[in-house]
Amino acid sequence: LPVSTPVYQGPLPTTQQKAFQPSSTPTHLSHRFMVWNFVAIARSYNDTEDSAIEVEFHDASVHHAIHVPNTLNHHLADVSAEALLLGCESSEQFPSKVQCLHFGSWDGTKEWLCDLPQGEELRALCLGGGWAAVASNIGLLRIFSIGGLQRQVMRLPGPVVALAGHRQHLLIAYHRGVGFDGEQNLAVLLLDVSDKGRSLIDGSPLPLSVKSYLVWLGFSLEGCPAYMDSAGQVCLLPGSIGNMWLPICDTRQHCKGSSDHYWLIGVQEVLQQIRCVSCKGSRFPPILPRPIVTVLPFQLPLCQLSTEKGQLEEQYWRSRLLSDRTKLANDGYCSDEHLENISQQQQESLMKLFALSCRAEREFRCIELAQLMAPVALPLAIKYASRARHRHLAERLGELARELARQAEESLERPPQA
Amino acid sequence: LPVSTPVYQGPLPTTQQKAFQPSSTPTHLSHRFMVWNFVAIARSYNDTEDSAIEVEFHDASVHHAIHVPNTLNHHLADVSAEALLLGCESSEQFPSKVQCLHFGSWDGTKEWLCDLPQGEELRALCLGGGWAAVASNIGLLRIFSIGGLQRQVMRLPGPVVALAGHRQHLLIAYHRGVGFDGEQNLAVLLLDVSDKGRSLIDGSPLPLSVKSYLVWLGFSLEGCPAYMDSAGQVCLLPGSIGNMWLPICDTRQHCKGSSDHYWLIGVQEVLQQIRCVSCKGSRFPPILPRPIVTVLPFQLPLCQLSTEKGQLEEQYWRSRLLSDRTKLANDGYCSDEHLENISQQQQESLMKLFALSCRAEREFRCIELAQLMAPVALPLAIKYASRARHRHLAERLGELARELARQAEESLERPPQA
Amino acid sequence: LPVSTPVYQGPLPTTQQKAFQPSSTPTHLSHRFMVWNFVAIARSYNDTEDSAIEVEFHDASVHHAIHVPNTLNHHLADVSAEALLLGCESSEQFPSKVQCLHFGSWDGTKEWLCDLPQGEELRALCLGGGWAAVASNIGLLRIFSIGGLQRQVMRLPGPVVALAGHRQHLLIAYHRGVGFDGEQNLAVLLLDVSDKGRSLIDGSPLPLSVKSYLVWLGFSLEGCPAYMDSAGQVCLLPGSIGNMWLPICDTRQHCKGSSDHYWLIGVQEVLQQIRCVSCKGSRFPPILPRPIVTVLPFQLPLCQLSTEKGQLEEQYWRSRLLSDRTKLANDGYCSDEHLENISQQQQESLMKLFALSCRAEREFRCIELAQLMAPVALPLAIKYASRARHRHLAERLGELARELARQAEESLERPPQA
Repeated sequence: LPVSTPVYQGPLPTTQQKAFQPSSTPTHLSHRFMVWNFVAIARSYNDTEDSAIEVEFHDASVHHAIHVPNTLNHHLADVSAEALLLGCESSEQFPSKVQCLHFGSWDGTKEWLCDLPQGEELRALCLGGGWAAVASNIGLLRIFSIGGLQRQVMRLPGPVVALAGHRQHLLIAYHRGVGFDGEQNLAVLLLDVSDKGRSLIDGSPLPLSVKSYLVWLGFSLEGCPAYMDSAGQVCLLPGSIGNMWLPICDTRQHCKGSSDHYWLIGVQEVLQQIRCVSCKGSRFPPILPRPIVTVLPFQLPLCQLSTEKGQLEEQYWRSRLLSDRTKLANDGYCSDEHLENISQQQQESLMKLFALSCRAEREFRCIELAQLMAPVALPLAIKYASRARHRHLAERLGELARELARQAEESLERPPQA
Repeated sequence: LPVSTPVYQGPLPTTQQKAFQPSSTPTHLSHRFMVWNFVAIARSYNDTEDSAIEVEFHDASVHHAIHVPNTLNHHLADVSAEALLLGCESSEQFPSKVQCLHFGSWDGTKEWLCDLPQGEELRALCLGGGWAAVASNIGLLRIFSIGGLQRQVMRLPGPVVALAGHRQHLLIAYHRGVGFDGEQNLAVLLLDVSDKGRSLIDGSPLPLSVKSYLVWLGFSLEGCPAYMDSAGQVCLLPGSIGNMWLPICDTRQHCKGSSDHYWLIGVQEVLQQIRCVSCKGSRFPPILPRPIVTVLPFQLPLCQLSTEKGQLEEQYWRSRLLSDRTKLANDGYCSDEHLENISQQQQESLMKLFALSCRAEREFRCIELAQLMAPVALPLAIKYASRARHRHLAERLGELARELARQAEESLERPPQA
Repeated sequence: LPVSTPVYQGPLPTTQQKAFQPSSTPTHLSHRFMVWNFVAIARSYNDTEDSAIEVEFHDASVHHAIHVPNTLNHHLADVSAEALLLGCESSEQFPSKVQCLHFGSWDGTKEWLCDLPQGEELRALCLGGGWAAVASNIGLLRIFSIGGLQRQVMRLPGPVVALAGHRQHLLIAYHRGVGFDGEQNLAVLLLDVSDKGRSLIDGSPLPLSVKSYLVWLGFSLEGCPAYMDSAGQVCLLPGSIGNMWLPICDTRQHCKGSSDHYWLIGVQEVLQQIRCVSCKGSRFPPILPRPIVTVLPFQLPLCQLSTEKGQLEEQYWRSRLLSDRTKLANDGYCSDEHLENISQQQQESLMKLFALSCRAEREFRCIELAQLMAPVALPLAIKYASRARHRHLAERLGELARELARQAEESLERPPQA
């Protein structure tokens, strides 16, 4: 009788997910989206008689629609207000190539093409402000100027999964190793591609939902790193609490059927919205009929969201996502008025939570809330506490107000420090 | 005949260790320690007729003993001078819950309770100064104020193993991946939970002994990250040399039998002591008879500890653990006198090593030692060298003393820099 | 009939590569190189009648040749201008030992020896400026002063692969985990071993070529971290763009046969040269006949190196490797003249690229190039554009020159900031 071999029962390695372009549909489709972002939609048509790429700009003043034949069989694309970047794999005759239609140029030759060295294949590409980046199968990252000059060539810390660019920032998702039992093992790197050349995030894990994979990587319109996993969770990396990713939307909660999904186009922090396409029974939309853009609101996954307290806490911390980023106004993503509104909403959430806690006789919690309030809001809190006959609380709030005033005075008197 | 299948002989993945509460005994025990730390001991009793939690404070002035029924079947606990934090898994009827007895509050409602969302289960929790943190099975980290306000919700970089809090610092041990052949693959993250919100350590590997797992994670009484692995090694992360963990005690050396272990309660840097319970033939103590606390001294694993040189070197570097942390005095963990004593011991170790090297004709080494000495100790070294007729050494020491004096003078003359 | 067992088809873990000394030949050889670096060559002879170590210094003024019997059976060695460091494993009678011939000492006892604790085995060692480091099988890193004092003992973040030292810097390659399908999973740590004790790089992945392993780790002569993998790729970590490794030489391109390799001795940034030994049909050279040193030039793997544009871009970015490191002159690795030459070459590459782009009617690219030029070179570019009748380009260059002049003036007027 054959001796039964002991069968291995432990965790099994997961196949590493392939590199992909965010907001594209699968490359095996003959009609597909190459990219759909805040600037434009690029579609590719690959029929027996003809093969073409069409780019339609949301704002026609950026550029008129582009229609180019796809003779090189490009399957990778990114598009910005400056350029359309395309990439293809090698064929029997030709090497893998990157091609740029630099329509933002003011000179006469608005196109450049670069062959990759023999044996090297494009896996991912992206556009930033004034530059392009491509990642290849042999683990190299190549930076180009938007005008077609070659810049640095670097070793990627692991096999590339996706690239994204925003102004001088390059976000790279890569395989940090092999995951087990259906998990991927990804990390991100955030590089400053400008002359400063710093690592802003140096190989921080990209923490996906249990047994999921990465389906979207990018920057919010305002420049904050973001991703979505195959479980439908969207996360932001605002940098306000270390290199921690904050979940901002569970798109699955908006799906009707279990095989429905949202296909992500972009994230807008100022509007606290996810722009996406609802896909029935699929992970991605067909080209025709033309998909309708759906807008999903941010919602932080706080506990007890069915209670007033939970809702106000969620409102408060959601508004904090933005107010931590006052540079938004400087960068022109947001008017001062809008920021002012957000700040007011924030104070309102706090004041409502304060009233709620006060009514529940939770005076300690009232003080915690008062510490989060803007100093100008404190007199209102004191008045509320007094009227609600929480004399002890009103006294403590008074002390807090005096302490804050004293601190403010001191910091005024102190000479500014470097 | 059946063809023999080739059998895989390579490294095999290790099952990931489960999340645990530091200084607790296993949850399957009906009578167990939920937590034993510098503040209190929390025991849980789960008998057929009754189920209760008892907390006994080491300092009765902090709080009188607490006895509460354990109707929710809490199995996770942490305790601080402010609060008792409890957590339970979901049952058929109820969701997973976190409960806080905030006895440090000055108001009338000293308790709060928070249900986790459907499908989410508590895995670990901890208390810090004014806040609580919980980690769940779906990879979320939730921060609460001690008064029960919900704060940030973040994605953990990997499955949680243990949490620990100290003042504004949150230490998180998590699975960075799967280890092989009996190894775990852990990392730690150290977050500032205050408004600054920085990562102090961002996903640094937690390097355990060969084929061991994590059995304790926490902060020293003075706030320095520490851990113990199942091989009995205790390590500190003082931050004096990068993010490197320094081994400070091999508890196995104090065990008589090979199946004896020490169960860790806490680490005291100022006293250079490990507080633990000696367990015969076990990894953890029973509730009864009441375990006796054992104190083990710090000892760095230097070479040649049976020689005078080795002992003095060990003494010197052990004392450096502390003197690198003069903020201890500011934080009230240590009197100025105590620090002064440590500083004197340090200079004595150096002077004895100096004498030893001098007698051994190792003049170069004498100079290396002199460079570690406080400048005020140099004249003594010069005197020793002169009397021992090491004229050349005495001259070099004189040069060193003059050089240091010159540098000190220069730094006085230089205007202070930002 | 035996039921066919399902065979596992997924990725398979790779055996972790063993620790090694850079620039040594395999330890099983009876005659071998223990180390060959910029200072000296150490050979070991292990014959039936005799066993010895011979050290030959490239510059006899550093030290005359050393010939010592190898009674302890040392197999690890590093050599610097100060000392020869040796290490052996334990035998039946003796523990694992580290031995130092500190010939740079000015006193009479130029040697020290240290036994490792029972059960601990040396795996790697290196010398820095005034210190030595050893790493052991139980995951400890031990620092010694060059005079033989024990300093810190730390936990390594993973099993050691190789160590290298340069001045106060210690570079450690270690196993971050298990790789799959022929890949290793390595990382590096760069520590400041001086009193500052910082981590300069904290566990950054070491990205090797596909399915390769590490064959060399070290610092360039000028102090920049460098490595070579078994695919023959040499990379530098200049720190000019985050913690990214830049490929600087594909040694395989210089090999005639597929089983030929280069054995690395050192990297010289100032000369942009790799010093190595060409090995026919082998990965390492025999002791006899005495190997001849080959010099390979740096070459960055830019695209289209057969075109003039590609060559000039490669020249430019190669020269940038160095000019980003003006501290080289301060450290005495490079004369001011040499740096001046490099700077001139750089400007020449840019000017040639400018001319090329101008002739190709790529005016936008000309502006990109002008932005990389030194301001003094701009008038030349303007003159070129005017003569070539690119009037529009000349105007834009004029604007750029005025803008730069205005900025320079402003920064002069602004008071210096801390």
